[in-house]
Amino acid sequence: MIMSYSCDIQIRVEYVDTDKMGVAHNSNYFRYFERGRCETMRKIGINYKEMEDKGVMMPLVEQYAKYLRPAYYDDVLILRTTVSEMPTAKIRFDYQVLRLENQEEKLICQGYNVLAFIGVESRRPKACPLWVVEKLKKVL
Amino acid sequence: MIMSYSCDIQIRVEYVDTDKMGVAHNSNYFRYFERGRCETMRKIGINYKEMEDKGVMMPLVEQYAKYLRPAYYDDVLILRTTVSEMPTAKIRFDYQVLRLENQEEKLICQGYNVLAFIGVESRRPKACPLWVVEKLKKVL
Amino acid sequence: MIMSYSCDIQIRVEYVDTDKMGVAHNSNYFRYFERGRCETMRKIGINYKEMEDKGVMMPLVEQYAKYLRPAYYDDVLILRTTVSEMPTAKIRFDYQVLRLENQEEKLICQGYNVLAFIGVESRRPKACPLWVVEKLKKVL
Amino acid sequence: MIMSYSCDIQIRVEYVDTDKMGVAHNSNYFRYFERGRCETMRKIGINYKEMEDKGVMMPLVEQYAKYLRPAYYDDVLILRTTVSEMPTAKIRFDYQVLRLENQEEKLICQGYNVLAFIGVESRRPKACPLWVVEKLKKVL
Repeated sequence: MIMSYSCDIQIRVEYVDTDKMGVAHNSNYFRYFERGRCETMRKIGINYKEMEDKGVMMPLVEQYAKYLRPAYYDDVLILRTTVSEMPTAKIRFDYQVLRLENQEEKLICQGYNVLAFIGVESRRPKACPLWVVEKLKKVL
Repeated sequence: MIMSYSCDIQIRVEYVDTDKMGVAHNSNYFRYFERGRCETMRKIGINYKEMEDKGVMMPLVEQYAKYLRPAYYDDVLILRTTVSEMPTAKIRFDYQVLRLENQEEKLICQGYNVLAFIGVESRRPKACPLWVVEKLKKVL
Repeated sequence: MIMSYSCDIQIRVEYVDTDKMGVAHNSNYFRYFERGRCETMRKIGINYKEMEDKGVMMPLVEQYAKYLRPAYYDDVLILRTTVSEMPTAKIRFDYQVLRLENQEEKLICQGYNVLAFIGVESRRPKACPLWVVEKLKKVL
Repeated sequence: MIMSYSCDIQIRVEYVDTDKMGVAHNSNYFRYFERGRCETMRKIGINYKEMEDKGVMMPLVEQYAKYLRPAYYDDVLILRTTVSEMPTAKIRFDYQVLRLENQEEKLICQGYNVLAFIGVESRRPKACPLWVVEKLKKVL
């Protein structure tokens, strides 16, 4: 049985996001992922700013994006962020960027990233803080 | 036997690239990849601007990055772009971001991306243009 | 008598916006200005995407920003965009970036920009389209 | 008599810099200005990284850009950074973005910015460090 928690936010494609191909440039999706991740954590009760203030940072370990359809200027996209497993020394987020077309969700881009927990001072790996585990247990 | 072509360029980490963690933000590596790809193609004799002027665009299909060490403001990084296979309807580039430490190359980040060939007008997939194949044959 | 129309939107400072000084990097404010301008125009009934589809583009002529206080990661800022005069061949927008502190608005940044109207095909200056003038007359 | 010091660097317009208008997006010029400023300071013998390591930061106070001609993908632009006055608590840089057309320099964009000196720890204004004044005296 897979338990997972998803959170949707809206992303509007801005002019600065577009390139001369007339579509949202590939690099922006990683900015969108970050926005989705922060809002998902906030909804779960984990404020990333607070986490850093408590001495834990979450640098990226790896990330991936697959581009299926172009997104255009002023498009209102749905960014669906999903957490499916309890974190250990790392945590994984999955992303789907969707566009509603005739009430159907069309997949624009999908991806994931993995983040580590490290100490702000030590800059060394740490286990996921207990209070974060507790918050995640409530939704997973 | 694997034939491959590699091209190194220097990337200096700019202030705007850093984040409050004090390191180059993860999203910038995809900008670096683009810079490396364009310079590699230029060296092979393939000018991407010319390609678009000739009616072929190369949107991204997928990309990946793995972050091994942080890069800091003002670091002069080596970006090594590698092409290892002849393109069909797609072309793949591999990237290594390196930093020289005591004359040794330390791996900061590695990744790849895959691009498709599409018509500027039709926006439909195309085979890699012959003149591009010819240029690549000379180096692979 | 000065008539003006103002529109407030919220801007949350994202991680990618910060730099190693720990504050929102100066270049982001121009991205914020763009977001504020588009939302203000939308509220007035002028969709910029629609304008381009109708053959009119609005490139920037000049812009300015004055930075009074730093903004930090996760800050929720108020971006106030103001139009104070009827456009001719150009249109000016003024911006104030504010942060609520103890129910008082503190000024973080203020700036303005001026945009021209040009034809998408001709790339030559044009007067502000009549339908845009009409929309602005309703609010100014 | 006005004494001034200028430094030229080359900027290539990257794909990610372009927008759906097909030109370099206005926000990028402020990134270019930063690059020009850092290289100019480096040439004078002032390494900005070293300055921060010595406890002095230089946040922006204000900046301005005027856009005269569009820049296109793959354009190789000349960015001319000029210092014309000895700094006090602030320092001003002027910028010209030029493109060579038939051996003539065409002005694409011009602008300036003013930066303050502040203590890394105190975050309070400071006078320009003496060693910076000394370096500038040699060129102004």
